[in-house]
Order: sequence, then structure tokens, then C-alpha cells
Amino acid sequence: MEQKKIKAALLGLGTVGGGVYKLIQRRKDEMEQIIGTQLEIVKIMVHNLDKKREGIALSLLTDNWQEIIEDEEIEIIIEVIGGIEPAKTMILEALHAGKHVVTANKDLIAQQGRELLNAAEESGADFLFEASVAGGIPIIRPLKQCLAANELTDVVGIVNGTTNYILTKMFEENVSFESALVKAKELGYAEADPTADIEGLDAGRKVAIMASIAFHTRVVFEDVHTEGITKITEKDVAYAKDLDCVIKLLGVAHDTKEGIEVGVYPMILKKEHPLASVRDSFNAVFVHGDAVDDAMFYGRGAGEFPTASAVVGDVIDVARDIQYECTGRISCTCYKDTPIKKFEEVKNKFFLRMQVKNQPGVLACIAQIFGNHKVSIVRVVQKYVEETQAELVIVTDKVKEGYMKNALKELEDLEDIYEVSSVIRAYL
Amino acid sequence: MEQKKIKAALLGLGTVGGGVYKLIQRRKDEMEQIIGTQLEIVKIMVHNLDKKREGIALSLLTDNWQEIIEDEEIEIIIEVIGGIEPAKTMILEALHAGKHVVTANKDLIAQQGRELLNAAEESGADFLFEASVAGGIPIIRPLKQCLAANELTDVVGIVNGTTNYILTKMFEENVSFESALVKAKELGYAEADPTADIEGLDAGRKVAIMASIAFHTRVVFEDVHTEGITKITEKDVAYAKDLDCVIKLLGVAHDTKEGIEVGVYPMILKKEHPLASVRDSFNAVFVHGDAVDDAMFYGRGAGEFPTASAVVGDVIDVARDIQYECTGRISCTCYKDTPIKKFEEVKNKFFLRMQVKNQPGVLACIAQIFGNHKVSIVRVVQKYVEETQAELVIVTDKVKEGYMKNALKELEDLEDIYEVSSVIRAYL
Repeated sequence: MEQKKIKAALLGLGTVGGGVYKLIQRRKDEMEQIIGTQLEIVKIMVHNLDKKREGIALSLLTDNWQEIIEDEEIEIIIEVIGGIEPAKTMILEALHAGKHVVTANKDLIAQQGRELLNAAEESGADFLFEASVAGGIPIIRPLKQCLAANELTDVVGIVNGTTNYILTKMFEENVSFESALVKAKELGYAEADPTADIEGLDAGRKVAIMASIAFHTRVVFEDVHTEGITKITEKDVAYAKDLDCVIKLLGVAHDTKEGIEVGVYPMILKKEHPLASVRDSFNAVFVHGDAVDDAMFYGRGAGEFPTASAVVGDVIDVARDIQYECTGRISCTCYKDTPIKKFEEVKNKFFLRMQVKNQPGVLACIAQIFGNHKVSIVRVVQKYVEETQAELVIVTDKVKEGYMKNALKELEDLEDIYEVSSVIRAYL
Repeated sequence: MEQKKIKAALLGLGTVGGGVYKLIQRRKDEMEQIIGTQLEIVKIMVHNLDKKREGIALSLLTDNWQEIIEDEEIEIIIEVIGGIEPAKTMILEALHAGKHVVTANKDLIAQQGRELLNAAEESGADFLFEASVAGGIPIIRPLKQCLAANELTDVVGIVNGTTNYILTKMFEENVSFESALVKAKELGYAEADPTADIEGLDAGRKVAIMASIAFHTRVVFEDVHTEGITKITEKDVAYAKDLDCVIKLLGVAHDTKEGIEVGVYPMILKKEHPLASVRDSFNAVFVHGDAVDDAMFYGRGAGEFPTASAVVGDVIDVARDIQYECTGRISCTCYKDTPIKKFEEVKNKFFLRMQVKNQPGVLACIAQIFGNHKVSIVRVVQKYVEETQAELVIVTDKVKEGYMKNALKELEDLEDIYEVSSVIRAYL
């Protein structure tokens, strides 16, 4: 075991990069105890050299990638720039050069994971990305190692803090989606352009990564059907409460006999489910395996230090592997090639809220259409009735998405139905 | 990297041992994919060779330890006998012989962890014990690796399924401790002699192990103050509900400026706390670190396959280390020697329920005594009043255990107080 100092370079000095640098500084002595040698950030790559950065020695900064990639003493590259390029090129160059890479880049892993992991495997390098899913929550390592003896069949997670904060506000303070979003922006939970969060794209990337690891089959972002929470109304919230349920934006991945199902959509779920009590901007990932049964991992899915916690945890592991000369020890675990199910084939339960003509025979007509499309109704609630109009809520049994789509299309053409106001999937 | 088959021996074929054997058989092909070579159980040590065991080849069984320890081809020993001896001697002999050990033995780790980890370190062997705490829930590896960048200050867990089942029944079905215990025995959640569970001893061992890892200081079972749940009554449950709380048996470990606090006792905690929604026989461990903030790990804390999931996960990791020639990679992480705080110095909030004389001045008298002993009262509820007797509930602020003990002693000597019916700590 060599006792030489291990040198690392940090790519990016935004929120997460700053957190990583500070955390490594703060835990210097402890890390030496854990790893058995010192770990030092010797270069930080930034876009703008002139920007003032408190507590960072100017000599560390560079805007020249060559300075880093050509420095043979730098063994670990910590990529926290985010996005596809230039991160991808840099990571590939680093791996080809035999350097080890730790990244928090979910966009990249969810789209180009295979290429990156192959590059790592070819050069026997460590390539770790714990921070790419659910921020500080340990999930990649538990899936890859602790639960390795399991056939995992279900991974269901609240993996976007912004939308969970919004839904929590809507539930606990009876406010609309719009005003909850305003509040989320005020608190810095939502970005100026919140599309990636509220439309489920961010969650979709994380689900792709988790599904790949859990089911040993490469799942990419494009495989994930994504829907957001913008259509959830205060009335939906009220009905969910009546059903002793909450509404959560869930990233859902199931390994079924007919293939892998992956999606992100708001779902109604029972208050007793462990995911139901995950409040505010917290994240949680619920897992089911044939041996472990149900398990859940809960914590902060974003933020400077929670994300840095995961990044630096990975860095410590890489340093340990360097010390023990066993880098590449945990590599790609996608040794299967299970097909991804077409979304129309995925089965879900549904909560449907619709405005219908208040006259006899309407429900019979709706039931007839559902019957024709193989949709079983398990519950009907009619709560608000005006002279000419009634609001009907229908909860269905599991049915293929394709069938439901066709049934809804036919319903919408019906004269007696003014509007299908909400279509929310149910995890009951 | 060698491609030879890795041979393991299993010590013990009880519930967990049976699960481990079945799981390894079931996942044979997958494990080969993960590890890169085959893993095989070549010997199983049992107490009674004559007992019928379905699905196990007789040729695997032995009651002779020498056959295993002297077999140089056996590289991994899986110890699931439990208890101190003969497990300890066997593990030490195995480690000294350079074999790697995976164990689920909490009694042993909580009492003799240092000696065993030292032996592993001396011979450069892997010594893993994920299953010793909270069954199938990944907790040891997350604490040692994923959260290694954190200064962890709090580990609070529901780590005994029997007592959590009993408390859940008491809360949800308003039954007494006694009848919930009967139900737990019927379902096989409680043993014929349930002492270790209901008195908090089992939880105490797990807390000692978790505290050692989280705070990098060896904490042994004897350091843990343990109290059980036998004194919790239906009335306590009713009051807890009034306060929007639940009662849980918590294993509590805090790293404070004045030393480490470790204890197991029933605590009243707010319904919003993530641990409050952990129902039935499920376990969960809540962790706080300076970078990750709050995190929680939830799942099955016991049972044949959940425990086997953790054991076999460790076995896979050992096999991988053998393949990569990096055994001993994760060894003892107790590089500190933080003192353990005396229990009298530990500060807690309290919920006190007492029967007092129904006359003016009693509360003043109680408040006076509390004041003398530095106990601050934050809430007083008087709900049930009879002609001569009243029931008084007092919730206090944080106070040293020693002060509270003295205050209670003085209260009990008071003529106006008939009985202090409940003393429950509060995690509010």
C-alpha cells in the first residue's frame, strides 16, 4: 500500500463544486484517517477566472483543461459542471487517460451511461456517480452492493424535491399549484425556468439511472414516459384526502415478466405507504426485492452539502481503491438486456375526475365504454351536483395505458361528458 | 484477476443460515455475473447431523470445525450461529488462518467487536457484518462508505421489530401491552421468552454497533443504558395521541461536545417525524450528518430472507475483494476515542404522568421541587379529575437524567402524590 498523497482536480465551482471543495477542506484530517493517506484538490477548472471566489487560492484555478488532463499526478477527476458537453468529452478523456472519475451528472449518466461505463471498464478506472440520483441519499451503492443478492422488481421514488415541496404545500395549506410554485421559487427550491422539475424530466433521468442499476439492463432517459404535476388541482387534492391518500410525483420502475416499465407521473397513494410521509423538499426511494422485501432510503435530494456528501463519499471510495490497488472494482452491472415495455402496455390504476350531464343513464354509458375497453371500475363517487352538471370521480382497477387512452378518447367525444378534468394514476 | 471458484463454509443452519443457503443457490448464475466467478458453499457446520434437512445434500454437512478451518480452499466463513461462543472462537481462528468472515452476530460485535476487527486487520482479511444491525436494511455500508464525508452527530433508530409491532398494535387497536405481546407471539414476532426484545437489550446491541461506526469510537453494549416498553400503558398511548405523537422504542446515539450518549428507551415523538410512520415489525434508522443533513434507512429488521439479503450482499463483496485482491479494504473505522457520557449527564425531555391529591397547591409544590432540581416544565395537562384524586401530565424541557432522577425521588416521597405512573422520554 503506497502512502503517497492522492491528487484530485475539481471541474466546476458552482453550488455543488463549492460544497465539494469546502467539505474536502473541512474533513481533511478525518479523511486521512479513513483513507490512510492525504487527499488534495490541486486544480479547479472554472469558466471565468476573474470571478471573485472567497476562500479559494487563486493558484488552484484554471480555465485550461489541458493543464488538468496532462497532469499525470492528478488521479481523480471530480466533475460537477453538469449537462452533456463539455462534461462528456472531459470525462471520456480522463477515463482514457487512466484517471478515475466521480460525477454528480444525472443528465449525462441517464443518456450516455453505457459509453462512459465502457470507457471506465476498458481502462480499469473507477467511475462513481452516487450524487447523480437523490443527492445525499445513499442509493447507488446500496443497490449495487448491499442489495446485490436480490432480484429487485420495484424501484419507486420521490426523486425531485421541487415538486415534492409544491405538492406538500398544496396538501397541507390547500393552495393552488401556481401559488405553491411561486413560494418554491421564493425559497430557491424552484429555478426561474422550472420546466425540468415540474414536468418530471429531472425525475425521469434519475429513474433511468436507478432502473439500469436495479434491473441490470441499460435504461436511458428516452425510455422513460414523463408527465408533470402542472395539472393537479386543489379539487384533486381534496378528493385524495377523502380517499385517505396523498398525491406524489413518483418515479416508477418495475421489472415485469413482459419487460421493464419506467415512468414518472403524479400518483395517488395511500397515507400508510412509507413514501406518503415524505414531506417538503425531501426525497425517498422505495425498493422491493425478493429477499429484502420492502426497503426505503430517505433524505435530502439536492443542495450544496447533501450533494457534496455523496460526491466526497465517492471520492473517498476511489482514494481507498487507489490505496488498495483495486480500482474498477465496482463497474457496470448491466449484464442483462431486458426489453423496455412500450408505454401503452404498462398497467396502471386510474383516478378520473370528470364533469358530466346530470341525468339518468350517463354513468351506465360511461361504464359501457370502459367495459368495451377492458377498464374495470372499482369505485364511483359523485359529490358535487348542480342542476344540470355533476362531478363524477371514478377509480379503476389496473388497465393497460393504451386501453385507457382509447377509452378516454371515446369518453371525450361523448355529448354527455363536458370535460375529463383529471387523469391521475393510482398506486393503491 | 483469477477466475477460480470461490469456496465458502456456512456455520449454522437455523432460520438465517437456511435463508443464506437458499439465497446463494437461487442467485448462483446472477452472482457469477456480478463477481466474475462462481461462489459455492462447500461445507455447512451443524450441531445435529441426524436432523432431516430438506434440499441440502448430506455431503455438505459436518459437525467437525476442524474439517472447515483446516480446509485451505475455503476462503469465506459465514457465521450465523449467533451468541458469543463457539462463534467467537471460530471467527478468531478463521481470521487468524487468513479466511474472510461474514457474520450476522450482533451480540458478538456489540461486545467483542474490537478484538474481532483487530484480528481481521492483522491478517488483512475482510470482516463484514451488515446483517448484525437492522437485518436487511443497508446501514453499515452506508455509514462507513456513502456517508464517510460527514461528521455524523445523531443516529436514532427503531431497530427492534417485535417492540415496534407491539407499539403499533397498542396505537392502532387500543390494546394493552400484554395483549399485543400475546398477538406478537402468535405471529412469531416475539419469542417464548421475549425479554431481550421487550427490555431493549436487542436494540441496545445494535445501537452500540451503529454508534461505534458513526462516531469512530468503540461503543460496547455495556455502555448503552437500556429500558424496555413493558411499562407503557393504554393511557400513555391516549395522551401521546392527544399530543399528536406516537411512542416508539428508540435506540438513540448522539455525539456531543461532552461525549457520546447511547441509550434505548421508549420515546414520545411527533407524528411528522419520519420515524413515526414506521409501522408493524419494520425497522428504520434515522441519521444526521453535517453535510447530508437528515437521512433515513427503512426496511425489514429481521426474518429469514431479509437477513440473508444482508449476509449474501456481504459475501458478494468479499468475493469481489478476493477477485480484485483487495481484502481488508474496509476495516475498523474506530480511530477516535471519544468518552462515553455517564447516563446521569445525558439530557432528555420527559413526559410524566402522575396521580395526585385533588387540592389547591399541589401543582405549586411539584413545580417547586422541579425548580429546585433544574427541571423546566413546558406543558401541564390535567384531564381526569375525581373527587379526591387528579391525573396530572407534565412535559418538561431538556434536563439531565441525574437531576430528573433526584426530582422524581423527592416527588415520590411527597404525601400529595399518590403515584408517578409513567416516566417516558420525549423526542420533540
